[in-house]
Amino acid sequence: MSERAVRFVLGERDIPTHWVNLMADIPDDPLPPLHPGTMQPAGPDDLTPIFPMALIQQEVSGDPEIEIPEAVREAYKLWRPTPLHRAHRLERALGTPAHIYYKYEGGSPAGSHKPNTAVAQAYENAAAGIKKLTTETGAGQWGSALAFACSLFDLECEVWMVGSSYDQKPYRRSMMQTWGATVHRSPSDITEAGRAQRAHTTGSLGIAISEAVEVAAQNPDTNYSLGSVLNHVLLHQTVIGQEALRQMEMAGEEPDVVVACVGGGSNFGGLTFPFLRRVLRGHAKTRFIAAEPAACPTLTRGVYAYDFGDTVGLTPLMPMYTLGHDFVPPPVHAGGLRYHGDSPLVCGLVKAGLVEPRAYKQNETFDAAVLFARSEGVIPAPEPAHAIRAVIDEADEAREAGEERVILFGLCGHGHFDLSAYDAFLAGKLEDPEFSEEDLERALAALPAAPALT
Amino acid sequence: MSERAVRFVLGERDIPTHWVNLMADIPDDPLPPLHPGTMQPAGPDDLTPIFPMALIQQEVSGDPEIEIPEAVREAYKLWRPTPLHRAHRLERALGTPAHIYYKYEGGSPAGSHKPNTAVAQAYENAAAGIKKLTTETGAGQWGSALAFACSLFDLECEVWMVGSSYDQKPYRRSMMQTWGATVHRSPSDITEAGRAQRAHTTGSLGIAISEAVEVAAQNPDTNYSLGSVLNHVLLHQTVIGQEALRQMEMAGEEPDVVVACVGGGSNFGGLTFPFLRRVLRGHAKTRFIAAEPAACPTLTRGVYAYDFGDTVGLTPLMPMYTLGHDFVPPPVHAGGLRYHGDSPLVCGLVKAGLVEPRAYKQNETFDAAVLFARSEGVIPAPEPAHAIRAVIDEADEAREAGEERVILFGLCGHGHFDLSAYDAFLAGKLEDPEFSEEDLERALAALPAAPALT
Repeated sequence: MSERAVRFVLGERDIPTHWVNLMADIPDDPLPPLHPGTMQPAGPDDLTPIFPMALIQQEVSGDPEIEIPEAVREAYKLWRPTPLHRAHRLERALGTPAHIYYKYEGGSPAGSHKPNTAVAQAYENAAAGIKKLTTETGAGQWGSALAFACSLFDLECEVWMVGSSYDQKPYRRSMMQTWGATVHRSPSDITEAGRAQRAHTTGSLGIAISEAVEVAAQNPDTNYSLGSVLNHVLLHQTVIGQEALRQMEMAGEEPDVVVACVGGGSNFGGLTFPFLRRVLRGHAKTRFIAAEPAACPTLTRGVYAYDFGDTVGLTPLMPMYTLGHDFVPPPVHAGGLRYHGDSPLVCGLVKAGLVEPRAYKQNETFDAAVLFARSEGVIPAPEPAHAIRAVIDEADEAREAGEERVILFGLCGHGHFDLSAYDAFLAGKLEDPEFSEEDLERALAALPAAPALT
Repeated sequence: MSERAVRFVLGERDIPTHWVNLMADIPDDPLPPLHPGTMQPAGPDDLTPIFPMALIQQEVSGDPEIEIPEAVREAYKLWRPTPLHRAHRLERALGTPAHIYYKYEGGSPAGSHKPNTAVAQAYENAAAGIKKLTTETGAGQWGSALAFACSLFDLECEVWMVGSSYDQKPYRRSMMQTWGATVHRSPSDITEAGRAQRAHTTGSLGIAISEAVEVAAQNPDTNYSLGSVLNHVLLHQTVIGQEALRQMEMAGEEPDVVVACVGGGSNFGGLTFPFLRRVLRGHAKTRFIAAEPAACPTLTRGVYAYDFGDTVGLTPLMPMYTLGHDFVPPPVHAGGLRYHGDSPLVCGLVKAGLVEPRAYKQNETFDAAVLFARSEGVIPAPEPAHAIRAVIDEADEAREAGEERVILFGLCGHGHFDLSAYDAFLAGKLEDPEFSEEDLERALAALPAAPALT
């Protein structure tokens, strides 16, 4: 084994000073969100009850770059810049001539990329005089990131955790509480939405959102915080891709293909947007692959339409690929990818043919994750296991074609809280649920009466 | 908040090329281990049935430095060098003029410092033609580090996990299995030692050691691997302190005091030995604090005597502070610190007055850990929480004295698999077991009939 570069590390002075706002590079005007009552374009004023103006401005900004506040860069220093790895051992295990790189975000205190936006949102809310943030969480990745961020900016944090997860995943709850957050089992009896849904004892993400939004809307010193989908959330995540661009330069390589998993789109957008900007500006030719679960195949099987962001139908309508806002994805372990829609920005890029979506079954993603763990060490979360599956397929193709393909992917989190899923996989007890034609028909029937998209 | 350095990072070329062997600097000849049958000094030959010669040579070497094999440095690149942090936020929370630094080892795939020696041991065994390593594990930190290391060097790995942990901590077990290890519940029915102890259904570390050693001793292509206590294990860990020395130079500061927790001593030795060498050579004046649990106060309350390393009494006798080899520490959550003895090297330094031991109760360590998590982000494992408690006390003293004391400590692992302990602490349900005079009397009575130490 000869000396060779494995990890490309940056110093804290290399933390980006600006976020990349891809909105400025999109050729067409973006489709506006619609007010759920009037079906007219929703404006910034519709969002002020639950978001601070600084984040609303980021949400609608057309500026190509937005400066990162110094206090946010200071908070980033706790774990950023994150390393870029060359996966020599995985390449050897695959016998591929491809060069595989991964950007690892699992070293953050909360264990995923989520704190990149959580600290930005906590900072802007604290700066606006807000005292408390509310949010929902499913398996707990987002809730723990926001709890951590609130602890840094002396904000209270109140999390509604989906009842079934609250009961089954006590450790993510303990993590939030260790950072000082209050965690409610949803449906709770402290909100109208929760009391109305008491029959629904296991809860759902839709109900949890309604509870968190209700409390934020009713209290002037309380705001709501969302962990994906919205433009400003993806914006904050672009620190990932900007660092990766520099690190690929250090490695002296240009990626042929960039791969990331997509749930709401914040991990995908965070890694790819800085690379996509170069493509949109004609400076590079790069392929982009969005990996999603076959059990919740929004980008590969959904319809492109205006739909609600939440199950209950309280949010503005967004233009996106959707499986229908009332679709309840089967309980695959990649909880962060179980979302009926996706970020409108990412959906637009898929629609424009700039991003290629691929769907994978649960077992083939765990098969890839175990091979990765046994060669590279890190045990991946089930979400990035989808990206690893796509990477291995690309690497196999490269071997068959005899091509030195350069592949970069986002390893957005570790699987320390997902080991029961590995247990089930290794025991051969993991299911492979798939989306059906019936599911699609139901989705189409449930779409709200909004203008059609082409 | 002004720009200021938070994280000091090194590149992979800065991974040390040699391990620091403090044995070369100890003024007196080291006391030899004794053969348990003859009570005569045990030599290298007594160890060949279960260890490869390369590790035995490291165990007894008087060379001041030992070169790190290139394949081990290659494996280190997966997570090394690890970052050194300045704990600005913790300092602010404490209102102290002290400067607090921590070296964070939790970013390794297994989540602690343990892989530093696991990869070195796996490499030397693979190089010697060994096919399988056996070991014991309590809560699973060491077992998972060795499982990870074996996956890198294509070795089989067989772990005997203490029965009660096997039942209560399925996730550490899943982690080992994900890396390809076979995990047995101890006592198992596949060893004589296990079958003889079947009545002991919850198991113990002592029984698990006996099972792992038995299998290694009986099979020529199988060796045994230990995660702490022995000289060569502490040697491998000195990459931590060497990196920290360079990083403190980058920070432009000289530590007044270096703090680490002690279980078997490998984390403590790994961080402090490179700093201790400077003191022993007259190049620096540094204080060293060894933090241990009041429930298992080996260094603060134990007797300095020859004692067995294991409960059953199969290992050579080692000169160390001991609470008696048959002492079963109360079930505090810092499982890695529940050991009746300590590394002979570390014990000798305590005996010589170069290292100051301090014991802490469980609740005060969790109190410190939660303050740390809420200021610095990372949720510490219960073991380094003992070091954090000592650091906070030092920082409080510095505030009272109006001193800019520079404190460095080892944050040897994260607490992702210890959140039930945080849960209990936050609920006020954590106990504070303490060592009693009765315990000490029993310990003295159980000491083997070996030469007395002064």
